[in-house]
Amino acid sequence: MGAFNDRFLRAANGVGEKTKPVWYMRQAGRSQPEYRELKKKYSLFGITKDPELCAYVTKLPVDQYNNDAAILYKDIMTPLPAIGVDVEIKSGIGPVIHNPIKNKADIERLGSLDPGVDVPHVIETIKLLRTQLDVPLITFAGAPFTMASYMIEGGPSKSYENTKAMMYGSKEEWDLLMDKLSDLTITYAKAQIAAGAQAFQIFDSWVGTLSASDYRTFVKPTMAKIFSELKKEDIPLITFGVGTRHLLKEWNDLDVDVIGLDWRTSVTEAREMGIQKTLQGNLDPAILLAPWDTIEARAKKILDETENDPSFIFNLGHGVTPSILPDTLRRLTQFVHEYSGRNQ
Amino acid sequence: MGAFNDRFLRAANGVGEKTKPVWYMRQAGRSQPEYRELKKKYSLFGITKDPELCAYVTKLPVDQYNNDAAILYKDIMTPLPAIGVDVEIKSGIGPVIHNPIKNKADIERLGSLDPGVDVPHVIETIKLLRTQLDVPLITFAGAPFTMASYMIEGGPSKSYENTKAMMYGSKEEWDLLMDKLSDLTITYAKAQIAAGAQAFQIFDSWVGTLSASDYRTFVKPTMAKIFSELKKEDIPLITFGVGTRHLLKEWNDLDVDVIGLDWRTSVTEAREMGIQKTLQGNLDPAILLAPWDTIEARAKKILDETENDPSFIFNLGHGVTPSILPDTLRRLTQFVHEYSGRNQ
Repeated sequence: MGAFNDRFLRAANGVGEKTKPVWYMRQAGRSQPEYRELKKKYSLFGITKDPELCAYVTKLPVDQYNNDAAILYKDIMTPLPAIGVDVEIKSGIGPVIHNPIKNKADIERLGSLDPGVDVPHVIETIKLLRTQLDVPLITFAGAPFTMASYMIEGGPSKSYENTKAMMYGSKEEWDLLMDKLSDLTITYAKAQIAAGAQAFQIFDSWVGTLSASDYRTFVKPTMAKIFSELKKEDIPLITFGVGTRHLLKEWNDLDVDVIGLDWRTSVTEAREMGIQKTLQGNLDPAILLAPWDTIEARAKKILDETENDPSFIFNLGHGVTPSILPDTLRRLTQFVHEYSGRNQ
Repeated sequence: MGAFNDRFLRAANGVGEKTKPVWYMRQAGRSQPEYRELKKKYSLFGITKDPELCAYVTKLPVDQYNNDAAILYKDIMTPLPAIGVDVEIKSGIGPVIHNPIKNKADIERLGSLDPGVDVPHVIETIKLLRTQLDVPLITFAGAPFTMASYMIEGGPSKSYENTKAMMYGSKEEWDLLMDKLSDLTITYAKAQIAAGAQAFQIFDSWVGTLSASDYRTFVKPTMAKIFSELKKEDIPLITFGVGTRHLLKEWNDLDVDVIGLDWRTSVTEAREMGIQKTLQGNLDPAILLAPWDTIEARAKKILDETENDPSFIFNLGHGVTPSILPDTLRRLTQFVHEYSGRNQ
């Protein structure tokens, strides 16, 4: 381990330097050859249940790309089996839930999480990583709306119509589900923070399907409760979702430190909308399949926009996809560091 | 046939009355029992190739719901086999393309459409419907970006990464594909308009995946060409996509008469953004699975916003899904007519 690199933490706290911190959502895993080799023998859950392996997979992109933060390798589904959700990660599909929630009784049956008993491997991996890493370790959870959408639809969805049918059909049932999932999120996050996680990102990946007005009615109170509770932990809190331009002002009201942007909203536009938090993003991951000149030009555009912004973290606008090559990510990190830091 | 109901056409042209016109995207087909019965014997393409059957399916929702416009029953994929695309509509998935476009040679191989030879059944159905309908007949096509996304990805996609890889990787190839698809769209639309279609909607359903800046570079010139060419036909032109709030101002520049809104942007917000066209939308179809009181309250909110707006067409924010009951749609149309027209 070298000296601790706090570039990410400083930017998250609004006091970043000219050289921008870099990390990538889903940077651990995906197309890395070492990871693909492991996946021949282990499932995602198999890796996450083995702290040594999971720490190795988490640390790889930091070592190989020189990124300024690590994000714990796991899935947003990780805590769900403990509360009674029968979930399987199917390759090429995503999470498939064999006992989707259909009614109030299904919600009432959901248990609570005891992190030391239910996810000891997550706690162990965080502790181990803190002895290995010289960059901050980010951990994460799925947000209640996004988790509920999988739990109700039984898997990925385009319309979220069963989720919305419950939401619009019975506010009482919906609020009960949001309560159970916010308790889960808070308990899960606190245990990971106690174990040593240095930042917490909540993935509300699919909440952009709601209008701002529905977000305020059905989701925002839950998110406000989660973030105000976690704010006490004194580590940077990050929120993210795709297609959420219409929700950015709502997020700006929450006790979060960092807002993740997808590529549909530029940093300049977000600032013009009055977003004051640290911004994280927002290169379209699909750009990383283009020739290097295009990648460089797009990254440069983002860095030119944020040159004098002490509250910016370079990332993608969504997760790394399996088609993106490790060498492209390594080269991108190097470019961002060099270009943004050129006059430092 | 009764007297011709031109409520839809007047609103499209900005001179609507207090009683709002109503139609629903994908109103033909889906959960209607008469249609489900037909689908036991016929595929989607089977129905569209039989003018009598296709006219019957197209007219059903007008007769049963009392809607103010018909939309021709077919798929955006309908013209593609004629230009060499091997497409199949798979139930529960959508269009699957067995020979996806991979390179310039694949684009060059695409043929052109001769509507009289390639889609005579579409022409026939339109002519037949014009003898049967007393409301305007809308026809439609997929927009070049959305069609290209299916043709390149081989089916529905979440990331559109192959599409974007071509777009960012070779502007020359991309422009060639856009040119071929805009020729197709124009030829296809003109033949349908000549046969008697009274309005034309272009579905750019998935273009919201692009930033406004990429839309301007890679898509807008193609759409400008299509709409300025079709403008000569002197029928209302409609554009629509989901998650396109960030593109509404771009659409406002085009030679379209009507802009379709999804539920993420209210009519009031769109007007505040400076959108002057007729607006069409925007009830979330998922609302239609909620209890009637909720549906009515949501519809009322939209109608209150547009009470004095002569440029508004009531619709959903996306297509009818197979779970939505015909009786709900019938009741919704009745409510919209009665509530919006209550002081007329």
